[in-house]
Amino acid sequence: MADRPIKELDLKTPLEAARKPSLNQIAKTGICGIMDPISPGIPPGSDTATLALLGYDALKVYSGRGAFEAIGSGINVLPGDIAFRCNFATVNEDLVVLDRRAGRIADKDAAKLVESLQKIKLEKPSVKFLFKSTIQHRAVLVIRGSRLSTAVSESDPEKTGEKVSEIKPLDESSEAKLTARILNELMHKFHKVLKEHSVNKERAKRGLPQANIILCRGAGTIPNIKTLSELYGINAACIAAASLIRGVCKVAGMKLIDVEGATGTPQTDFVAKAKSAVQTLKKCDFVFLHVKATDVASHDGNIKQKVELIEKIDHMLGYVLSNIDLGSTYLALTADHTTSLLTGNHEGDPVPVVISGPYVRRDGVEELDERACASGGLHRIRGMDLMPVLMNLIGKTKKIGA
Amino acid sequence: MADRPIKELDLKTPLEAARKPSLNQIAKTGICGIMDPISPGIPPGSDTATLALLGYDALKVYSGRGAFEAIGSGINVLPGDIAFRCNFATVNEDLVVLDRRAGRIADKDAAKLVESLQKIKLEKPSVKFLFKSTIQHRAVLVIRGSRLSTAVSESDPEKTGEKVSEIKPLDESSEAKLTARILNELMHKFHKVLKEHSVNKERAKRGLPQANIILCRGAGTIPNIKTLSELYGINAACIAAASLIRGVCKVAGMKLIDVEGATGTPQTDFVAKAKSAVQTLKKCDFVFLHVKATDVASHDGNIKQKVELIEKIDHMLGYVLSNIDLGSTYLALTADHTTSLLTGNHEGDPVPVVISGPYVRRDGVEELDERACASGGLHRIRGMDLMPVLMNLIGKTKKIGA
Repeated sequence: MADRPIKELDLKTPLEAARKPSLNQIAKTGICGIMDPISPGIPPGSDTATLALLGYDALKVYSGRGAFEAIGSGINVLPGDIAFRCNFATVNEDLVVLDRRAGRIADKDAAKLVESLQKIKLEKPSVKFLFKSTIQHRAVLVIRGSRLSTAVSESDPEKTGEKVSEIKPLDESSEAKLTARILNELMHKFHKVLKEHSVNKERAKRGLPQANIILCRGAGTIPNIKTLSELYGINAACIAAASLIRGVCKVAGMKLIDVEGATGTPQTDFVAKAKSAVQTLKKCDFVFLHVKATDVASHDGNIKQKVELIEKIDHMLGYVLSNIDLGSTYLALTADHTTSLLTGNHEGDPVPVVISGPYVRRDGVEELDERACASGGLHRIRGMDLMPVLMNLIGKTKKIGA
Repeated sequence: MADRPIKELDLKTPLEAARKPSLNQIAKTGICGIMDPISPGIPPGSDTATLALLGYDALKVYSGRGAFEAIGSGINVLPGDIAFRCNFATVNEDLVVLDRRAGRIADKDAAKLVESLQKIKLEKPSVKFLFKSTIQHRAVLVIRGSRLSTAVSESDPEKTGEKVSEIKPLDESSEAKLTARILNELMHKFHKVLKEHSVNKERAKRGLPQANIILCRGAGTIPNIKTLSELYGINAACIAAASLIRGVCKVAGMKLIDVEGATGTPQTDFVAKAKSAVQTLKKCDFVFLHVKATDVASHDGNIKQKVELIEKIDHMLGYVLSNIDLGSTYLALTADHTTSLLTGNHEGDPVPVVISGPYVRRDGVEELDERACASGGLHRIRGMDLMPVLMNLIGKTKKIGA
């Protein structure tokens, strides 16, 4: 949601340009500020930013993206498992990548391919693997066995026109060597099965890119963190469609709420998410409602869409405001990071943050945007401070000292 | 002193509602801000907050409350000693607590009981104990010997209607086991002496709760910190009546000033403290003047009293302003934590802070309260930053680097 000033918007940010009565209402009844998800100038990933927003020190606990993706897609990742983000991709005979997304392969084609890949056996019987497709070309891989390591290179060159990389151990440990050997074995066996697969022969006939290789990256393990319930004694829930966000929330011990029509895309059903949040709040102390859409528009450089999506978020929050008890509920609104329409990247600029509720020290800020919030009573906080601030307001923090 | 907006005060805080010309005068001539005693959202204890205000990293150096209480009450706690906060309490024959404060027993009754308890001998002759009553039902216990530990549970159930707890080691160390054994021995011997004591027989006749047991909690040792003199080369003094605050200041190497009429209660003699501060400033570089009263009113939920006490603090500071050389003295005013009239607890909301003096960069803030100060030139700082800021103004900080 957060951005930099843009020439096309007369040097306003998309938040400043959008019509947003409900967001402004929250600012008017709340205490505002700006927030560095990690620290000033550091661009966070969606995973580290979400860890920070949930109160964790991402710099200390982050252990790679793979495990969050895998957990978010429904795999029960265990301690010691090594998880990877994977893509179905298209390579030529020399293993040069022609399409990193295999033409954004349809879910049903991917599902058939996965079924065959799951039957592959590894040479070392004490190591197992789990492989699952998620959306389009995306999939997750989990390696399970004793003495594995995340210290391995990636097979994904992250560019077309480059050759698929051999996976190498990144340190001298026997764990890293074993993990690299197993991954290379899997990548070769996957390729062998895929290139002969009937689905790909069919795709070739239809002129579609063949999904003839799996690329993997983002090795991760489950971070060793306490749940929100252990830390604050709260019953917490997550309403998010993006598997990465769901994975982080699951690791934090939150209940994942499924909402029909929530897709993690600009076409998501905003009001369905708002309705679910209102219902979930009746049973939970804390509800985390995440919208991915504005980030997608930012990565695509789509200014008009980003402004429209902010207006849809405003509409979504209008529903929330009209349907919760504002006398007993605290509402915090922020972004997990700045994503620049201009660069298409996550940036390290701070995000606006506002907390509205019965006993906050209201300030004079009247609009919710990057600049107006910068003069608010919260000043400039860190992402990992937000959760203690919120938990303090609802009486869930523990005193340090006596 | 700091609080949240309160309905009964038209959503003002007690500081905002109070008449406070002297406090506002300090704000007008100073630089203002807000301060997180520990970090945003974290409710501090009075001990950790005071450590922070004196410039120490409380999260690193805090080692329990007991030693501060014991030192503040005049016991010379040594490195290695384990100190506890104790209560005289009333239990029935099944050791169920009937009154955690033994009817707030009179000081003279407690003194007679203590005299008998001090004569008790421990089985292990290499371990000694010191026991001293402070105010009403409050007392401190210090165990002295080699190889003791703070890793023991508390005997105080902190509720009436519950049984006194056996003290247990909290880790597997021989130190923790030994300390638990000694404490249990002491608690049993204390109980045996108290229940047969003539003072209690006398109290029973008068219909008063018998002080027939000692409850202990808050195991602590002296933190390993440098004194303010070692850190900044200053001669520092403390004017505080609360034994906990006095203990922290003593550990920081400050001279404890006794003021007649200073009680650590809402009935304290504010002007006597102000007069003492003015006198002490003639001999010392730094005087820490602490008022406990507003915290007491907050814990009691007494809105009217809290506002009145702020006005008394204002009057006290009026005396200080009229009697110090404002051209050569820096005056900082803040709270050690927010205590909510509504919850009765220490809360993690930031406190206002102002520093007035000849060479501060004055801002436009005209009132000393939580919200006005939030727009001041100090922005949002941490408790442990205050002391370096003050020492810098009087030329007592050391340069880092060259």
